[in-house]
Amino acid sequence: MSEAEKLFKKLLDQVKIAAKFEYAASLLSWDQQTKMPTGGAEGRAEIYAVVKTEGFKRFTSDAVGEILEELAGMEEKLEIEKQALVQRISAIYQRSKTIPPDLFGAFSEAKSKGYSIWVEARKKSDFKLFKPALEKIIEFTRQFAELYGYEKNPYDALLPDYEPGLTTEDLRRIVSHLRRELVPLVRSLTEQPNKPDETLLQGHFPEDLQQQLSLQVLKAIGYDFNIGRLDTTAHPFTTSVGPDDVRVTTNFVVDKMAPALFATIHEGGHALYDQGKDPLVKWLYLDVGYSHGVHESQSRMWENMVGRSFPFWKFFYSRLQNILSHFKNIALEDFYRAINTVKPSPIRIYADEVTYNLHIMLRFEIEEALLRGEIEVEDLPELWNAKMHEYLGIVPENDAKGVLQDVHWSEGYFGYFPSYMLGNLYAAQLFAAAKRKIANLEEEIAKGNLNILLKWLRAKVHRFGLTREAPDLLREVTGKGPTPEPWLDYVKEKFSNIYCVS
Amino acid sequence: MSEAEKLFKKLLDQVKIAAKFEYAASLLSWDQQTKMPTGGAEGRAEIYAVVKTEGFKRFTSDAVGEILEELAGMEEKLEIEKQALVQRISAIYQRSKTIPPDLFGAFSEAKSKGYSIWVEARKKSDFKLFKPALEKIIEFTRQFAELYGYEKNPYDALLPDYEPGLTTEDLRRIVSHLRRELVPLVRSLTEQPNKPDETLLQGHFPEDLQQQLSLQVLKAIGYDFNIGRLDTTAHPFTTSVGPDDVRVTTNFVVDKMAPALFATIHEGGHALYDQGKDPLVKWLYLDVGYSHGVHESQSRMWENMVGRSFPFWKFFYSRLQNILSHFKNIALEDFYRAINTVKPSPIRIYADEVTYNLHIMLRFEIEEALLRGEIEVEDLPELWNAKMHEYLGIVPENDAKGVLQDVHWSEGYFGYFPSYMLGNLYAAQLFAAAKRKIANLEEEIAKGNLNILLKWLRAKVHRFGLTREAPDLLREVTGKGPTPEPWLDYVKEKFSNIYCVS
Repeated sequence: MSEAEKLFKKLLDQVKIAAKFEYAASLLSWDQQTKMPTGGAEGRAEIYAVVKTEGFKRFTSDAVGEILEELAGMEEKLEIEKQALVQRISAIYQRSKTIPPDLFGAFSEAKSKGYSIWVEARKKSDFKLFKPALEKIIEFTRQFAELYGYEKNPYDALLPDYEPGLTTEDLRRIVSHLRRELVPLVRSLTEQPNKPDETLLQGHFPEDLQQQLSLQVLKAIGYDFNIGRLDTTAHPFTTSVGPDDVRVTTNFVVDKMAPALFATIHEGGHALYDQGKDPLVKWLYLDVGYSHGVHESQSRMWENMVGRSFPFWKFFYSRLQNILSHFKNIALEDFYRAINTVKPSPIRIYADEVTYNLHIMLRFEIEEALLRGEIEVEDLPELWNAKMHEYLGIVPENDAKGVLQDVHWSEGYFGYFPSYMLGNLYAAQLFAAAKRKIANLEEEIAKGNLNILLKWLRAKVHRFGLTREAPDLLREVTGKGPTPEPWLDYVKEKFSNIYCVS
Repeated sequence: MSEAEKLFKKLLDQVKIAAKFEYAASLLSWDQQTKMPTGGAEGRAEIYAVVKTEGFKRFTSDAVGEILEELAGMEEKLEIEKQALVQRISAIYQRSKTIPPDLFGAFSEAKSKGYSIWVEARKKSDFKLFKPALEKIIEFTRQFAELYGYEKNPYDALLPDYEPGLTTEDLRRIVSHLRRELVPLVRSLTEQPNKPDETLLQGHFPEDLQQQLSLQVLKAIGYDFNIGRLDTTAHPFTTSVGPDDVRVTTNFVVDKMAPALFATIHEGGHALYDQGKDPLVKWLYLDVGYSHGVHESQSRMWENMVGRSFPFWKFFYSRLQNILSHFKNIALEDFYRAINTVKPSPIRIYADEVTYNLHIMLRFEIEEALLRGEIEVEDLPELWNAKMHEYLGIVPENDAKGVLQDVHWSEGYFGYFPSYMLGNLYAAQLFAAAKRKIANLEEEIAKGNLNILLKWLRAKVHRFGLTREAPDLLREVTGKGPTPEPWLDYVKEKFSNIYCVS
């Protein structure tokens, strides 16, 4: 073994110790969101903080720093994938070192408490209840931004956690490009006389049947239950609680089946990414510092380009009918059109593909202004509703369906939302490439051979996705850097067909 | 605040840090036993070991040692309960210090792996599969015994973890006393012509109904779901995963309702103890070093003196009938006698009250001989069956129902089993005291007023039970040290009545 190889191994061994605490913290968080009795919240916040901080301390330890220093200048003796890994670890190490562990711990505890308070506040639709916790979290976030450092905009300091290489300015450009195209598109579609009939998706769908459906669809897309499981939670999510334990959650609503179904496919898409990691990176726990846009591209691709496609339902519709008798007399074509209804609605995660990005823009603009101190937490409900009206023409009936709907801020994920928008764009780019590279992809999907797509993603995206910057990965796989065109082409074509626009 | 008070507070603060890691390790273990997908086992063992070991390191840190040293000689300035606490912490600290953290970590990992292998081996009834893991665990246990130190018997070195103050000789004396009385009692009862009809407990009991029953009985005894929850697992257990989060598990068998029901009440009894801890000791995580006999006295009391009593079923039977229609036409008296059938059977946790202690003796004798190296792991299945035949007159049909039935050895709990026997004895002593001290206790139970007993136990046993040695506690509450007479009186009277022995 060369000296560089030896150091590389030493580095992974050190990082693995940190990962063990990180995975334990993930389980504490998963449990808090799925199983924990309410009385456990206070103690859990303290336990979570100390375990999470221990992971942070181990990752930012001098031992790691010394190995990285020794490795500097020697990397090119490593295989290319290992070089990329060292660079990624080094970047996150440098960035993390700017945060004192005590501050990290205090923020971790505030986030864990914030989550429990948010659950309560959303249940009661009471923003005031959440306000002090949110203010605290924003204060911490600002402190972190100052420590990370930035030139003009504190938001720029947060983005490297989620989209390394991207700036607030880049996002603004993408947002204005998309808005220019989307607002007229939504208007044109919603004015079409030949609308899908969404009401046929309403009925009575007992939880156990929806659960069965969720399990079947996860199996269909290739989710491996031997290293995963499905639970329910207030806000669906995916998490790794070990190197071979990638869990998804969903949320059942009894009078509608679409929300849970597509949330499940969405999280399943995330999970396929994490279940497909190369063994080399399995003990590398990175919850920040990689492209969440690429991660979201996998969830959004499976949810939309596959899960809301006609070929998929050609294959899967009879299975759905077998579980939910409600659909026995509803034609496949009508079902397909119904799940692709374009209609401004209050909840982001249940939004159709066309209006979805408008939800993101709203959040991006609000959090960016919050961070700059241009607006205050107490202004949020009003501002939220005003922007909803401006972009989507609707006002949510209460804060639970408005400003309180998303879990992210309660967990301190400021800067994350744009990744959903990027995820949509990247998904379209990657899926277009898949269609070019895989013969008869859509016919294979219609036959239920989803594995052909999964195999391709495993080879091209999943293996080392977490250690690649998004632009590099996209160029490698699709021949082009990030661009909104493929996604715009995709929605225009798909929804023109569905809405019979000539 | 006095100097002693300040130091005491400092001590609790230090110990609390250790407790946070211990609670996190408890959650990792709870999850492993209830939720974790099988593929997660290998990674989980490593994660568990590092978190558990961190708790151990923090507890045995120099910081704790220095505070204890400073406190030495000053304790009497503290309130009596705090003095007891300092003594208990000091004793466990001294004992733990003899174990090097790396050895502790390696044993923790072996136990976590051992558990997963045991689950698999029991499912397949394949002792050979479990053998190497068990050998490793016994090797570690012997190493620990050497480090703890002992005079004659390595088993003596293990007992302080579970029964401080008790020796192997003490146990031998109790065992031979009990055996002398029990073997003829079992014979006499099983030879009575007027036996209960056990078959009326057989039927078809869907899991969801048994679940409902378990939830109701837990509520009835006063288990607080706001700080707890019920799940299913291979082997029922109770665990605290936080200062206010005490969870129980049970295990449903579809053709019998008694196993899950009484396992649930048993674990509920443990949980009532843990949920009743004084706030002062909530952040003191002690999984060893207190009397597990007293802990088991609470589970066995609720399971048997309450849960298998006529007064309880006078109150609860109609509730059971409402959930399980099978019992609609079965008289209360017949049901009561059926759940108190005395009949040698292979599984300890489902054994009747009279034969139960014989199961314990067998395990005690085997593990004591194992530790002394008198017998080898490969001899276990044969030896188990021979002893089952000797004590109970039956031979289990396979190893799953024999030597593989219990989780304890897979988790390294050598020395724990005697606590069940002591628990039975202590339960009878405490319950007899309760009957003397609480006016009309049995009539109150028959009215469903179980809270009257819980309140008494909370005040007398639960609050500081974990920091008292069993003999002191028993003398305080019952006026006498540990003695088997009350238990023998209890079973003789109860079962003479049930079997109509004149």
